[in-house]
Amino acid sequence: MSADAEQPARLLIRDLSQIATPAGRTAPLRGAGLREIDVVEDGFILCADGRITDIGSMQRLTGLTGDLVEVDGRGLSAVPGLVDCHTHACFAGDRVEEFSLRAAGATYEELHAKGGGILSTVRATREAGEAGLAAALARHRSWMLRAGTTTFEAKSGYGLDHDTELTQLRVVRNAGGVPTWLGAHAVPPEFVDVGADAYVDFLIEDVLPDAASLAVAADVFLERGAFDVEQARRVLSACRAAGLELRLHGDQFTESGAIPLAIELGARSVDHLESTGPVGIAALAFSSVVGVLLPASALFLDRPMPPARALVDAGAAIAIATDFNPGSAFCESLPLVCSLAATQLRMAPEEALAACTVNAAHVLALADRKGRLAAGFDADMVLVADDDWRHLAYHLGGDVVHTVVEGGRIVSTTRA
Amino acid sequence: MSADAEQPARLLIRDLSQIATPAGRTAPLRGAGLREIDVVEDGFILCADGRITDIGSMQRLTGLTGDLVEVDGRGLSAVPGLVDCHTHACFAGDRVEEFSLRAAGATYEELHAKGGGILSTVRATREAGEAGLAAALARHRSWMLRAGTTTFEAKSGYGLDHDTELTQLRVVRNAGGVPTWLGAHAVPPEFVDVGADAYVDFLIEDVLPDAASLAVAADVFLERGAFDVEQARRVLSACRAAGLELRLHGDQFTESGAIPLAIELGARSVDHLESTGPVGIAALAFSSVVGVLLPASALFLDRPMPPARALVDAGAAIAIATDFNPGSAFCESLPLVCSLAATQLRMAPEEALAACTVNAAHVLALADRKGRLAAGFDADMVLVADDDWRHLAYHLGGDVVHTVVEGGRIVSTTRA
Repeated sequence: MSADAEQPARLLIRDLSQIATPAGRTAPLRGAGLREIDVVEDGFILCADGRITDIGSMQRLTGLTGDLVEVDGRGLSAVPGLVDCHTHACFAGDRVEEFSLRAAGATYEELHAKGGGILSTVRATREAGEAGLAAALARHRSWMLRAGTTTFEAKSGYGLDHDTELTQLRVVRNAGGVPTWLGAHAVPPEFVDVGADAYVDFLIEDVLPDAASLAVAADVFLERGAFDVEQARRVLSACRAAGLELRLHGDQFTESGAIPLAIELGARSVDHLESTGPVGIAALAFSSVVGVLLPASALFLDRPMPPARALVDAGAAIAIATDFNPGSAFCESLPLVCSLAATQLRMAPEEALAACTVNAAHVLALADRKGRLAAGFDADMVLVADDDWRHLAYHLGGDVVHTVVEGGRIVSTTRA
Repeated sequence: MSADAEQPARLLIRDLSQIATPAGRTAPLRGAGLREIDVVEDGFILCADGRITDIGSMQRLTGLTGDLVEVDGRGLSAVPGLVDCHTHACFAGDRVEEFSLRAAGATYEELHAKGGGILSTVRATREAGEAGLAAALARHRSWMLRAGTTTFEAKSGYGLDHDTELTQLRVVRNAGGVPTWLGAHAVPPEFVDVGADAYVDFLIEDVLPDAASLAVAADVFLERGAFDVEQARRVLSACRAAGLELRLHGDQFTESGAIPLAIELGARSVDHLESTGPVGIAALAFSSVVGVLLPASALFLDRPMPPARALVDAGAAIAIATDFNPGSAFCESLPLVCSLAATQLRMAPEEALAACTVNAAHVLALADRKGRLAAGFDADMVLVADDDWRHLAYHLGGDVVHTVVEGGRIVSTTRA
């Protein structure tokens, strides 16, 4: 279960029962295209220098010579390394006390009175320091890797002050993640008296100039009680001008105008959508914005699931992600999210796979080299512990991730 | 991740952040009693000859000499080995094709036309032979063990003929499980023309005499389309006369009269209860029958969750289990079931822990030696990968089971 620094440059995985990958070369996949998965039976994958160099049937595998690691793939199936395009994995502490009180019936007000909620994570994150935060993210990253996630995004938004927001972005970047600046996650205690507009001014004037050089994208929590459409438009317009890609948390608890705003601004994605109705579904389906669905979060909070089936059937491009965070989704497992997609979102395993590989890679602007098993793509893959790759979704809560390969190197395996 | 045949007779787990166990000595726990968990901080557990011999605070751990394995428990917490009191783990094959078609929107009729449903598992199980079935159960058992299940029940019910039913019971017994005879699981193809009553006659006259010496308990699937109250009463009365404990599948899809029958016959448990209403809740609460709730099955089929909160608040004794089976709950993970209990059933982590330890042990008539961490009890335990044991429920889909001890021996660990 550890990276081997001595692994040679070439890796051959042979005798795989199945190799399953989203078909074609375009991204994102939408509508019926989400079901198009190419499957090679009894196949091999050859990797060199971090890239996939060849994939095919064992019948055409010719004699290979030279320095080579061979992996016996019998009884296993390969899918692309999973891409988690929506996490808040860069946090300190946990919220197990709040979770337990809530499970036992405590109301939101009682939890708040006991110091729960997002601000408890903000306190812990501010106090952790850069080294403490890096250690916490490394731990979370090791969980994600064991669960098959080879590419991850993580947002700031637990600093809510200049220095801690930048520290979060730096820590994510140093850990190899895709950093998204979510300064507009909540109004911090220091700004409660002066209000959300003053905090938005601060974000744009004082934080954005530094955040823009660290982050890949910017995100805003557009919701009643957080930030409204006008505030979100101000933040995201400034971020777009600074060269950042745009994301948006929207329609989690109320239909909040996030979909029209995401379309207006040309955002990469609008995320959550548990409360999206028919008009929003139709608008999203005819746009280039990806809907990112987070069923583990809906499960964790026992909230309605997003209208995945209606979105796909309307022709939308959707992705699925964990939303990994300490308050509303203490869950790093994309295989579990695939199971929830199949059982709660009425998505076929094929659709779920495309949604957490090629489409998630598109959300992160990485679809040219992540999210598919094809020659030229990064050699990131998951070997599923069954000869049918669909166990990834079928085996609910199971130990389905047998081996994880990242950049052509085995970074996690259950094999003794 | 493998048992070490050379482990000495004594095991000391020291410096555990927490040791958490259901309080008291009675079973089952009911109502508010389900929340009573004793927690020792900074503690040790000493085991010898398969039993727990001492538990306490590190402060009173005196010098131990002799042949002893020491486990460093820092950063870990201990809970009793988990008890899965309702599984159908003794099956051959899987139903991933049916799962995938259903996720993509196929109707029940379409699935049936494609050869899906329980009878496809009956076919595979009949064809597997005793060795094949033993190999399949060994594989499932290894999954359960890694997920922290040290005691498991498994039902027959995929044979539905004399020989295969007995083979299933023998295989479960040989694997160390608690065998339950579920001949009345479905009417097999051979009896469709003559009807369920004739099949019940066959079960009682031809199978029970042999099943009674292999099984610990008997179970019936009481449901519209399966067996009715009168048929269930006939089967279970005969089984009781033959010395078996009684179980009952009831109220899964319709309120079917299972609770009154379970009470009438003095059954150990009535299991499922997704459709139980207020009258059934009140009746169960004032009875000695345990309600076994199976939230992974409800999730897998996207059905309503059972009324756990109402049952507990009314004073009922409840247990939770996986229902592990290939059709409606391909899930062996009791930690995931604990997370579902907390998020979907509104049970506190404490209630969930009691429900899959002491109360589940009571359902299996093993509560005198399983389900608690206390001197004299079997040395079965799970070391949770956090210093707060409640991560067992909080960490949704996470790799929370660090080490599993069964009978005083380490049988699974993630430690390198």
